[in-house]
Amino acid sequence: MLNNMEFSALYTDLYELTMSQAYFFSNKKNDEVCFDYFFRKNPFKGGYTIFAGLSDFLSLLKNFIFTENNLKYLSTIGFHKDFIEYLKKFKFKGKIYAFKEGEVIFPEEPVIRIEGNIIECQLIETLLLNIINFESLIATKTCRIVYAANGKPVVDFGLRRAQGFGGLQASKASIIGGAVGTSNTLAGFLYNIPVKGTHAHSWVQSFDSEIEAFRKFVENWPENAILLIDTYDTLNSGLPNAIKVAKEMEKHGKKLLGVRLDSGDFAYLSKKVRNILNENGLNYVKIVVSNQLDEYTIQSLNNQNAPVDLFGVGTKLITAFDQPALDGVFKLSAINKIPKIKISDNIEKVNIPGIKKVKRYFDNNNNFLIDGISLIDEEKIKILRHSFIPYKKTHIAKYKSEELMSLVFTNGEVLNNHISVSEIAKYREERFNRLPDEHKRFVNPHIYRVGLSKKLWDLKDKLIKQHKK
Amino acid sequence: MLNNMEFSALYTDLYELTMSQAYFFSNKKNDEVCFDYFFRKNPFKGGYTIFAGLSDFLSLLKNFIFTENNLKYLSTIGFHKDFIEYLKKFKFKGKIYAFKEGEVIFPEEPVIRIEGNIIECQLIETLLLNIINFESLIATKTCRIVYAANGKPVVDFGLRRAQGFGGLQASKASIIGGAVGTSNTLAGFLYNIPVKGTHAHSWVQSFDSEIEAFRKFVENWPENAILLIDTYDTLNSGLPNAIKVAKEMEKHGKKLLGVRLDSGDFAYLSKKVRNILNENGLNYVKIVVSNQLDEYTIQSLNNQNAPVDLFGVGTKLITAFDQPALDGVFKLSAINKIPKIKISDNIEKVNIPGIKKVKRYFDNNNNFLIDGISLIDEEKIKILRHSFIPYKKTHIAKYKSEELMSLVFTNGEVLNNHISVSEIAKYREERFNRLPDEHKRFVNPHIYRVGLSKKLWDLKDKLIKQHKK
Repeated sequence: MLNNMEFSALYTDLYELTMSQAYFFSNKKNDEVCFDYFFRKNPFKGGYTIFAGLSDFLSLLKNFIFTENNLKYLSTIGFHKDFIEYLKKFKFKGKIYAFKEGEVIFPEEPVIRIEGNIIECQLIETLLLNIINFESLIATKTCRIVYAANGKPVVDFGLRRAQGFGGLQASKASIIGGAVGTSNTLAGFLYNIPVKGTHAHSWVQSFDSEIEAFRKFVENWPENAILLIDTYDTLNSGLPNAIKVAKEMEKHGKKLLGVRLDSGDFAYLSKKVRNILNENGLNYVKIVVSNQLDEYTIQSLNNQNAPVDLFGVGTKLITAFDQPALDGVFKLSAINKIPKIKISDNIEKVNIPGIKKVKRYFDNNNNFLIDGISLIDEEKIKILRHSFIPYKKTHIAKYKSEELMSLVFTNGEVLNNHISVSEIAKYREERFNRLPDEHKRFVNPHIYRVGLSKKLWDLKDKLIKQHKK
Repeated sequence: MLNNMEFSALYTDLYELTMSQAYFFSNKKNDEVCFDYFFRKNPFKGGYTIFAGLSDFLSLLKNFIFTENNLKYLSTIGFHKDFIEYLKKFKFKGKIYAFKEGEVIFPEEPVIRIEGNIIECQLIETLLLNIINFESLIATKTCRIVYAANGKPVVDFGLRRAQGFGGLQASKASIIGGAVGTSNTLAGFLYNIPVKGTHAHSWVQSFDSEIEAFRKFVENWPENAILLIDTYDTLNSGLPNAIKVAKEMEKHGKKLLGVRLDSGDFAYLSKKVRNILNENGLNYVKIVVSNQLDEYTIQSLNNQNAPVDLFGVGTKLITAFDQPALDGVFKLSAINKIPKIKISDNIEKVNIPGIKKVKRYFDNNNNFLIDGISLIDEEKIKILRHSFIPYKKTHIAKYKSEELMSLVFTNGEVLNNHISVSEIAKYREERFNRLPDEHKRFVNPHIYRVGLSKKLWDLKDKLIKQHKK
């Protein structure tokens, strides 16, 4: 993990520092605040979001400090020497409560709650949003792709098209979302996740003939060679050469693992290739496809019964191509225990005030039914209300429930930081299996309910009215 | 810059290593190759692309090595000890030729040419693509946004919605594209670029009243305070309070710099706010807007004569929202001086073979006219041909021209690595001014011509026919 990396606390929007200096000189530096992280809309017009990035965020937070050079820089851009002196000792000492990484999450509910003094909370906002928004986005995108693949494995091939160093976080998040491996070797090293790969066109081009290139590749990697067969002509050159090599391997008791298609129409080509391989007694040779795949093309290939065995997904996964940002925000909900609201000129930008907790209620099959947000000290909630429409109510008293937030960071230390990426991925899978299918479809998914307790609803209502007076 | 950062050579797709080991054991490790970086389509359905990322790529390349732990890891995932021994001494020793960073570039032309042994060239592919594709994408997106802003300043506010650590490269690239500053403080520190910011809603919420919050903010930042006026109600609370504070400042000989709108309809609100400010004698107070802006919304605001003074652009800039990846590729064009081609089943995926150079031709006004790709040793080219359609030709003998590639990396060292981001941004601006306007429009832009010399065209044709026989 990124556990021992010293990470510059300059990784923040300038205004966090600007405000912090002003808090400092306004005698507010010991004000105790509560911030919520939540998002407003599921990405990709989908019915759910996967929570990821928590372990990276906490690891970075642990070592989030200002170096001496960082402080010199702040002084050159106009910050005050007393405030800089204060930053010398800066370290986040507050408390962080969060859902488990890998959880299925929904709009409006506070997924992370941050408590601490106003300066430390403000200074970590950008880091939190940057990491959590992005990893959750990619885990969600991958989960959709894996759902479309319907049991066939998906591998992340995206590093070359990733958004710069973001590729690191993305490859890791893809594993949380359900990918079985990544081409990103550094992510493999840092996060202990499986790495996978085939070979490029350049391998084939670098030999005098395609058959020689194939022979040399399987000679070097006899156990796991996947031959790329579209460098010159898939059906007239690549496939016949791969078959010849597979047959030569058989004589030495070896088996060609697979062939890869990287261009052309995959529904057409995969069927052709499968038939010809089978006619040659090569039923065991797998077909891998890679080129501009996403959940929609994969679903379409499956609907056409394309005999594909593994999907290599690049650009569309690693950038979350059709919606490359999650709209997660970090909003002040209380100061010195007094609930706070922000209203703005867009109704959907109003936040839910107060220090809150979230419970998930389960139906009789142990599937997810509804999530309920309440004030932290509320017990035995019987009814949840829709957050805007008060007459929409759900009676929940009879359902089993679970509290979703727990303490994950305190006294400058990460709690439970031994959780591996594969454990997070496993948790994601277990939880995703308990989300009813109607929330998983790509077109017009059923909206999962998230309600408010009466006490919380009334508090929000009161504060809006107060400010609109 | 990232100049002295040791950077793990594991930042690569696994197959680069797989192939490299196979090259190593196939006695090909001294084969001399040439690879081209080029892209196939301008992003955003636009008429041009801005070349960025070169200085970051070269800085990282200089320190691109395998640490001892990296090598141990490779051994655990099945790499051979002799190859690992070879990697111990790995350092890229080849030559790199490239366009100047900040240049306006077009599809198909080789923008970077890499020459070296086959293993070193293969191992740097992913790093090159990852950095160059992304920074060029963001510089291009920003250039479009700045073009739409039509002289009004644009600031990058995107870090919280950036794709993880990619935010670093993105904020830098935004300056190359023409942004006047960024909120990303670490990018400011690392790249010596201007940082900017205002304050958040949390500042206002943290005080008992909005007016108190505004008073405290201008007290702390009297010279450059921009007050966010939409926390509770823009026209009925935020604006009257900001006016009150501006008037109080005047009494002390100070001037409020600006107000910021972050929600609502900006065309409507900016006019309202401008009028009310002016009626109060506050013509000097600037109006800043931020919320889901891009080149289209900014162009629309300008078309409606919205009196906005500065655009803060976040998500849509920092992720290049409507097309979050550039399709740049890295293709083998020659091995031991023998030209190489790759054909594939998609016609647009054929590469141009051979070791090449690129010239730009200028019209009588010194504006860009056409780019010509030829073999490296060709002189006095008179005619350029369309790359697919041979009867489309341009006579170029009478035009002035410039060669676009020069040596930028040799003997493990970066040449001219003293160029600052602001110099790159200046070059981008100069060159962009020489691109005729019809290539700049957003809808259906005029296609800039890139032609091939006859000799190169014939070579490509010959190799295609040879492989399709």
